[in-house]
Amino acid sequence: MAKDPKSKNITWTGGEVDHAARILRNGHKAAILWFTGLSGSGKSTLAMSVEKELFKRRCHTYILDGDNIRFGLNRDLGFSPEDRTENIRRIGEVANLLKDAGSICLTAFISPYRADRQGSRETAPEGAFIEVFTKCSLQECERRDPKGLYKKARAGEISEFTGISAPYEEPLNAEIVLETDKNSIEECVQQVVAYLFENGFMSVGRS
Amino acid sequence: MAKDPKSKNITWTGGEVDHAARILRNGHKAAILWFTGLSGSGKSTLAMSVEKELFKRRCHTYILDGDNIRFGLNRDLGFSPEDRTENIRRIGEVANLLKDAGSICLTAFISPYRADRQGSRETAPEGAFIEVFTKCSLQECERRDPKGLYKKARAGEISEFTGISAPYEEPLNAEIVLETDKNSIEECVQQVVAYLFENGFMSVGRS
Repeated sequence: MAKDPKSKNITWTGGEVDHAARILRNGHKAAILWFTGLSGSGKSTLAMSVEKELFKRRCHTYILDGDNIRFGLNRDLGFSPEDRTENIRRIGEVANLLKDAGSICLTAFISPYRADRQGSRETAPEGAFIEVFTKCSLQECERRDPKGLYKKARAGEISEFTGISAPYEEPLNAEIVLETDKNSIEECVQQVVAYLFENGFMSVGRS
Repeated sequence: MAKDPKSKNITWTGGEVDHAARILRNGHKAAILWFTGLSGSGKSTLAMSVEKELFKRRCHTYILDGDNIRFGLNRDLGFSPEDRTENIRRIGEVANLLKDAGSICLTAFISPYRADRQGSRETAPEGAFIEVFTKCSLQECERRDPKGLYKKARAGEISEFTGISAPYEEPLNAEIVLETDKNSIEECVQQVVAYLFENGFMSVGRS
């Protein structure tokens, strides 16, 4: 910068645009809603439905999912154990940036390993990482098979498929467990919204 | 999901929460303000000053810089040419996600190679990528030397230092050129804000 600013009549309000300023502006706290569960357990469907509901309530939201991550940021990664771990690490970092920017960031990835999810949890500030387990029996996920992937996995056309030929490590202490084979989408959405209200992410009166 | 939702009395408003919905909500268009220039040319200072001004005007903003990228998402990368390229590629992808989320995302990295900046430009939708060249003579940058890096580079303590022992490829067609060795911070900030108004990112009357 020029050492002596030419115009002297502009005063800069001090203070950075920090996280607190964004939260105050937005009227809700930022968070990471980390959906995890088997393929077909309802992660994406629920993340989208929760996002719609939060957006309606004037929250700032954003979903990270395969569509905008696997074809973009993580297009250099495959499905080896190392690449899966790096995939989740980067998603955790980006979710944290969106959270820092003031959003409620929803992520919808199988994220089968406890250690990887724990890594993402530790990247976020205390209390900001909300693990949402879309709990659904393998049998029911396989019955739904929305993308025909289980069929291919059973036929041996996909290797290392989570639940069939690769492990899924269920969360032990998820903040929210959505039983998607027992409850409706609406019920699951309301369960998430209720959690956010009860834990001070949104204030009552925000309708 | 349970095939038949239990509660029948909730109607879901159709339509995803898409980019258009966010823009309408926010009241301004999203963009990437990609600051590029030599170390000491004023990228970070100006990005922060522009962000303050935009935030004051109720825009949604976020800065990506060394502090939140090099220690997080890109902590696995060094300074080899390949790593520099991957560093910029990831930043471009994340900036695009923040832009997609509705923010005016400001990035403050030297980003010395034209091809890398072009890659980030191509990642963003047409018109959303605004290259901001903080133009400043090497002599002046070296005189400022806010982090003492030029001194170390001259002493041979830092190798491949941009401007000294590694190239900086000046933008040929930057949307905005800020002559930081001639104009004050305030003047540069107003130049960026004027660009955003003139190009329809913000509407007049947004004070």
